[in-house]
Amino acid sequence: MSSVDGVGTKLKVASALAKHDTVGIDIVNHCVNDILTCGAEPLFFLDYIAMGRLMPEQVEAIARGLAQACREVGCALIGGETAEMPGLYAGEDYDLVGFIIGVVEKDKVINGKTIIVGDTIIGLPASGLHTNGYSLVRKIFGTDASVLSAYYPELGRTLGEELLEPHRCYYRQLKPLLPVIKGVAHITGGGLIGNVPRVLPRGMAAKFDSRAWTVPPIFQLIQQRGNVVRDEMYHVFNMGIGMVIICSPDNVDRLTKQISEAKVIGEVIKQKGKARVVIE
Amino acid sequence: MSSVDGVGTKLKVASALAKHDTVGIDIVNHCVNDILTCGAEPLFFLDYIAMGRLMPEQVEAIARGLAQACREVGCALIGGETAEMPGLYAGEDYDLVGFIIGVVEKDKVINGKTIIVGDTIIGLPASGLHTNGYSLVRKIFGTDASVLSAYYPELGRTLGEELLEPHRCYYRQLKPLLPVIKGVAHITGGGLIGNVPRVLPRGMAAKFDSRAWTVPPIFQLIQQRGNVVRDEMYHVFNMGIGMVIICSPDNVDRLTKQISEAKVIGEVIKQKGKARVVIE
Repeated sequence: MSSVDGVGTKLKVASALAKHDTVGIDIVNHCVNDILTCGAEPLFFLDYIAMGRLMPEQVEAIARGLAQACREVGCALIGGETAEMPGLYAGEDYDLVGFIIGVVEKDKVINGKTIIVGDTIIGLPASGLHTNGYSLVRKIFGTDASVLSAYYPELGRTLGEELLEPHRCYYRQLKPLLPVIKGVAHITGGGLIGNVPRVLPRGMAAKFDSRAWTVPPIFQLIQQRGNVVRDEMYHVFNMGIGMVIICSPDNVDRLTKQISEAKVIGEVIKQKGKARVVIE
Repeated sequence: MSSVDGVGTKLKVASALAKHDTVGIDIVNHCVNDILTCGAEPLFFLDYIAMGRLMPEQVEAIARGLAQACREVGCALIGGETAEMPGLYAGEDYDLVGFIIGVVEKDKVINGKTIIVGDTIIGLPASGLHTNGYSLVRKIFGTDASVLSAYYPELGRTLGEELLEPHRCYYRQLKPLLPVIKGVAHITGGGLIGNVPRVLPRGMAAKFDSRAWTVPPIFQLIQQRGNVVRDEMYHVFNMGIGMVIICSPDNVDRLTKQISEAKVIGEVIKQKGKARVVIE
């Protein structure tokens, strides 16, 4: 198993706040979660950092985040490339890309094939926006340091701090439970609507009960300020659910006991019409 | 073995000429050559393309190049990511990154350890600038389409065509000869001066006879137009040598017979003073 991903325009927030020690965590955890959707264990990670001109302090801070996140999942940071490309990246802009390689035994691959109607959908809370939706956020709030430094009582911190909250890693929590999990969806770009159908067998849909979890305040703030319709919110953001797991109803207790934050948020139903995701 | 690399600012030339079907070849071959320095056979390749806004035609052209180059070395193009990042990439700018995984048996790793004083240095011709030195080229010539479209008799084609010549792959030629090769250096950023010492054991240096090969006209053109000193040219560009291999003098005949373009261009000497590369 392997995956390649970028941090996306969350980097713009990091640059605006000159805080570069968390984006490395973001990219590693994003990649680890991505291959976890097949049940894979992370083995190796490589990074690519591209800048207009080399900024050693930034690179050092980024690398610190990468190393920390790799260490936490026992993944080897085996290499990387730092490229200087004047003219392609303006000012202090940079791009950060991660490549990961993992393994899973053939008979332990999680692919959703055994999912049946009536199976339970469990959600694990997101730590924030993770690495998706930042282009829309930037459209709404801009990236002036002054805007990002504003304190919001409902967030309990500044907007910038909230937006830079690292992408959470689910590997350690889920690893021991993989044998009873039938499907895993990492909620990235496209939200629940875009990511959950990919793990469902044909003819099945996911029905979510939106009252089953509390959408974190940051999403309400974004929706209000940007006057974004509910449907778009669920298409762009994770809305507080970073990872979705699907299991037989028999295993729900075991899962929710082991992971106290895990919540039943929906069930697998027969598909009616075109919609493969229903959010009630 | 694995490696991650970008195409660098050669992409700016591709964008200026709206020709995107060769940069995919560049990045695959760059990566394949990189892991060939350890004797590794390419297995898997993943790409990352980042753009300000998705440009499907460009992506399709890039992907065609990637697929073609992977096919030629029997490497599986197993995935990739296309990221849309408004605000990070201006206009039609994009970045292209490749990530490769290869294998080599432990006892067949090429690491230069067996190199001794008196070993022969063989050069394989480059197809052009490969993927290095483009920032300097852009400083000298700019990237106006009109400048790039100018025909140069000494090149036998336009400057743009010359600059976009794909990075050559050495895998197929070198593979059968790896057992008699002691060291391999891929001549990328840093040129002969930056890349050859890395494969030499301590206390040894590389002495090149610059009359042993003809520096291609593009490098003379760059040097004249940019008024670049010789030393800088050898630090920035490959100067016509894309790959350097080091072998025992006994095996030179075998190598040069199998690869007709291969030329003896120097020898391994005892290091005197600080210089690890001498170009005579």
